[in-house]
Amino acid sequence: MSESESQRLDGARVAILVAEGTESVEFTEPKTALADAGADVDVIGSETGNVQTVENDLQEAETVEVEQAIDDVSADEYDGLVVPGGTVGADTLRFDDEIVSFVTEHVESGTPVGAICHGPWVLVEADVVDSRTLTSYPSLQTDIRNAGGEWVDEEVVTDENLITSRKPDDLDAFCEAVVEAVAEDVA
Amino acid sequence: MSESESQRLDGARVAILVAEGTESVEFTEPKTALADAGADVDVIGSETGNVQTVENDLQEAETVEVEQAIDDVSADEYDGLVVPGGTVGADTLRFDDEIVSFVTEHVESGTPVGAICHGPWVLVEADVVDSRTLTSYPSLQTDIRNAGGEWVDEEVVTDENLITSRKPDDLDAFCEAVVEAVAEDVA
Repeated sequence: MSESESQRLDGARVAILVAEGTESVEFTEPKTALADAGADVDVIGSETGNVQTVENDLQEAETVEVEQAIDDVSADEYDGLVVPGGTVGADTLRFDDEIVSFVTEHVESGTPVGAICHGPWVLVEADVVDSRTLTSYPSLQTDIRNAGGEWVDEEVVTDENLITSRKPDDLDAFCEAVVEAVAEDVA
Repeated sequence: MSESESQRLDGARVAILVAEGTESVEFTEPKTALADAGADVDVIGSETGNVQTVENDLQEAETVEVEQAIDDVSADEYDGLVVPGGTVGADTLRFDDEIVSFVTEHVESGTPVGAICHGPWVLVEADVVDSRTLTSYPSLQTDIRNAGGEWVDEEVVTDENLITSRKPDDLDAFCEAVVEAVAEDVA
């Protein structure tokens, strides 16, 4: 990475959500990509403490520390947001009303919001999918269409400030698109 | 259980679905309740072999043998169907088109279909929720409403042949309602 590349997101502050059952690589890779590009990345969950992430949905992966409870943060402090997948993790995130409001505020404010795999369930819950084009893990496509979204099967889809991908294999493209969107937003 | 009680479902044949990540008690308790009432219960999955069930979504529970692959069964052979939850299990079931068609055929034929916790996602995928009243694990309520269903927060909801419950704590009421519905159907 060139010097200029590593400093593109200097001064940017990005939120990443995590919960019990978040898919490990869908958390760590976007977090690392954003930090490597110079952003400050805050790990946000329902409450502070440690949560268990997973690999392939059901195998235990590393424990992650939630640095900021959702009660203590405000969407307008951030220049971007990442919503990882994990079937259980995404289902857990959508079940927290404050997390959902935080996501709605991000999307409505126009800051970049990336969601991957089962993460777009949180976008459905946040009621921000209507008339937008997005992708997700394919098992969510009916939920996304029923919420008024147009679901497409692509590695990464950018529709205004919504960036979505299907699965861990798409992470390189997803991370690049999220970093690019935050860079454009803070430029 | 009285002699007459134990024989109410004699001659009835009921299907129960299972997948990797099915919530163990939501599989074993309805299966036991139906068998105790005299029904033959077939364990059906995407393919034969063993699948790992879970407890509280992420802890390993017992391995279950899939007795019949979905390819080898037809909805009209059965007098009832049970769809257990488990976040990953239900998400996995809805991802199999043949499982989904099997569920649609059951619901449309009028035979009793019970779904608990995250199991109603499979009903959403089967496109049988529109204009029906049902419950589920509360995180699914938006998906159910977006699919045209009326979501209510009750221990067990019976709407014609659809029987739904919210969570493992509701299992006693769920099992009783499913057994009763199958008994009425085969009477």
